[in-house]
Amino acid sequence: MINTNYQKLPGSYLFSTIAKKVKEYQGQHPDKEIIRLGIGDVTQPIAPSIIAAMHQAVDEMGDAATFRGYAPDLGYDFLRETIAKQDYQARGCQIAADEIFVSDGAKSDSGNIQEIFAENIRIAVCDPVYPVYVDSNVMAGRCGTYDEKTGMWSDVIYMPCTRENQFVPAFPKEVPDLIYLCLPNNPSGTTIPKSALQDWVDYANRNGAVIIYDAAYEAYITESNVAHSIYECEGARTCAIEIRSFSKNAGFTGVRLGFTVVPKDLKRDGVALHGMWARRHGTKFNGAPYIIQRAGEAVYSTEGQKEIKEQIAYYMRNAATIKKGLLDAGYEVYGGVNAPYIWLKTPGQMTSWAFFDALLEKAAVVGTPGSGFGPSGEGYFRLTAFGSYENTQKALERIRTTPLS
Amino acid sequence: MINTNYQKLPGSYLFSTIAKKVKEYQGQHPDKEIIRLGIGDVTQPIAPSIIAAMHQAVDEMGDAATFRGYAPDLGYDFLRETIAKQDYQARGCQIAADEIFVSDGAKSDSGNIQEIFAENIRIAVCDPVYPVYVDSNVMAGRCGTYDEKTGMWSDVIYMPCTRENQFVPAFPKEVPDLIYLCLPNNPSGTTIPKSALQDWVDYANRNGAVIIYDAAYEAYITESNVAHSIYECEGARTCAIEIRSFSKNAGFTGVRLGFTVVPKDLKRDGVALHGMWARRHGTKFNGAPYIIQRAGEAVYSTEGQKEIKEQIAYYMRNAATIKKGLLDAGYEVYGGVNAPYIWLKTPGQMTSWAFFDALLEKAAVVGTPGSGFGPSGEGYFRLTAFGSYENTQKALERIRTTPLS
Repeated sequence: MINTNYQKLPGSYLFSTIAKKVKEYQGQHPDKEIIRLGIGDVTQPIAPSIIAAMHQAVDEMGDAATFRGYAPDLGYDFLRETIAKQDYQARGCQIAADEIFVSDGAKSDSGNIQEIFAENIRIAVCDPVYPVYVDSNVMAGRCGTYDEKTGMWSDVIYMPCTRENQFVPAFPKEVPDLIYLCLPNNPSGTTIPKSALQDWVDYANRNGAVIIYDAAYEAYITESNVAHSIYECEGARTCAIEIRSFSKNAGFTGVRLGFTVVPKDLKRDGVALHGMWARRHGTKFNGAPYIIQRAGEAVYSTEGQKEIKEQIAYYMRNAATIKKGLLDAGYEVYGGVNAPYIWLKTPGQMTSWAFFDALLEKAAVVGTPGSGFGPSGEGYFRLTAFGSYENTQKALERIRTTPLS
Repeated sequence: MINTNYQKLPGSYLFSTIAKKVKEYQGQHPDKEIIRLGIGDVTQPIAPSIIAAMHQAVDEMGDAATFRGYAPDLGYDFLRETIAKQDYQARGCQIAADEIFVSDGAKSDSGNIQEIFAENIRIAVCDPVYPVYVDSNVMAGRCGTYDEKTGMWSDVIYMPCTRENQFVPAFPKEVPDLIYLCLPNNPSGTTIPKSALQDWVDYANRNGAVIIYDAAYEAYITESNVAHSIYECEGARTCAIEIRSFSKNAGFTGVRLGFTVVPKDLKRDGVALHGMWARRHGTKFNGAPYIIQRAGEAVYSTEGQKEIKEQIAYYMRNAATIKKGLLDAGYEVYGGVNAPYIWLKTPGQMTSWAFFDALLEKAAVVGTPGSGFGPSGEGYFRLTAFGSYENTQKALERIRTTPLS
């Protein structure tokens, strides 16, 4: 009577395994100061104007005259309108406020979005990629069987992104129903130019596929030829759902807020996906907290924008530090230009986990093994720019001076 | 390629329909003061000690030294331990902190819990009941086809709870795999004694069924022979999952916090459901906000307990007012003793929606049609005690003086 698809999932979730290994190491070396450049968690505190907005919202909740009960399932208008205007209309994207679905975060949305699709659809993912896309589809019974040798699921279409193809996914031979694109990519920190994204939109429209576009890292884009939203591409309204996060642009990893855009023009089998996602939200979700939605609104204020841009610049200085440090130490390095992630090629024939262990044991630095993000991540390793500047410098100093291979 | 189960769902969600009707009425009668005793939303502001805890947590998030990023997926220990101790161990229930899964609310949990079960299981629900149980199973393809005439799904086992059986569900003839019990019940406001709940636990253990026990209203229980938790019953650890909410006991409808208890002894097909729900949380959820979890902790403080007990007493005075007013007006009335809901029998042959329309049009009072909660709710109507005392009095005065049938 249980959902046996859960039993198919190999081992435990990547970050739990890392946490366990780090805990063990710390237990054995209680004196060692471990520097964590592993999990993509931020370290800078929430910006002052956002803190002020939350205090005000908390006060409103304590006063009968301004108390707010159930929020609208799909989000407060004040937030949906602000998002539509500043994230989309200001960039020339035709997205209306009622096409924005506010949620408790991009992880929930990217895990839940598959629910509105049939059980027998074929999904395609970049490889390596954020594990939630595949795992949530495995739980729904869509991925077939897992091959421990290759680390691949029989019914998933993998689109390898490696140094061999400059991390640009090629159109798969078999046409998928659902295509997950996370750009700038987690974990590789690489991305593709807007023209290549336009090719994907055209491909999806031509083939009737739907693109789930995870733009959680768009705030880190520095190159002008890279799109911040898939709706900058012509025709995206009929083929793309976009997922956004406040975790990385405003440090909301512990605050929890995100949103998903489902354009009303996006239909499959004659049905608007907008209505389906609204029904899903209305049935299995009860809105994000009022206080947190006010925090989200404050992100878009003039002061909020100034403050979060400083935070992003802070993290991108870390990215540059990591990149330079690794290059100086002789590593082959990718990412870090349009994303807070640095993706290094492990030296020689070293596996991702062997490099993880060496880095932890010899330098007391925690990163993330590339193989945890998919088979084509094997032989790569992720470092994140979300630490403090001081710790990032210290970690790179250790890496520079410690032979790991 | 879409999930066609969504197309099977009839019309829109109950409360959306009500909201639409009320909006229309208000548009046509802009001068009328509408009193809402419909949706189960609270009106009292969040208690002072909880507000103080949230302010403190907001400040922590604004300071690098105390900032918190990703929360543990399953909840912070400070909250899980408090819940285990005060809600369970203090009542003699053997529930440990790591059996508590903190979430963004009972609606999400009660909608998502079905995911860990197989697609072909049979579910049983009390009728009438909170619509999320059935709708979330329909979306997962478990309920067969909908019969518009009867308002019933072909593959759902309904357990009618009406005045004919004193609102006590009987064991179904066909044994279900999953049994949803919401006690005290939403919408009827009725409940069953602990001895009858023990019978259900024994039934489930005897037959290998799992009980999803929704105890969202336990704080309103006034009678000593009614269990606050299913784990007060012997053997519940091997057959029951309990869902709890902070929405009704502490006014968190817009704050969003709940939790689910999955005992480690609960296994089916040789697999512990505890691990499955942990995996679900770890993959498709990223923890409740730190600020909100601190608010939850404050609910259990001495001051918090005192304050929320006052709020509950306030609402229960409303319940008594509604009950007395309806009885005085000659209605047949149930509930309101162990729950903030009053369940009235509509006069004569009046349908639930006809009564809704009459109440709105003649008295400008909004309630909820019983038929919206299931076929056996037809001919009943729900009023909630969550309004202000003044409005509740005013609404009952209108009902007393307005002939509706």
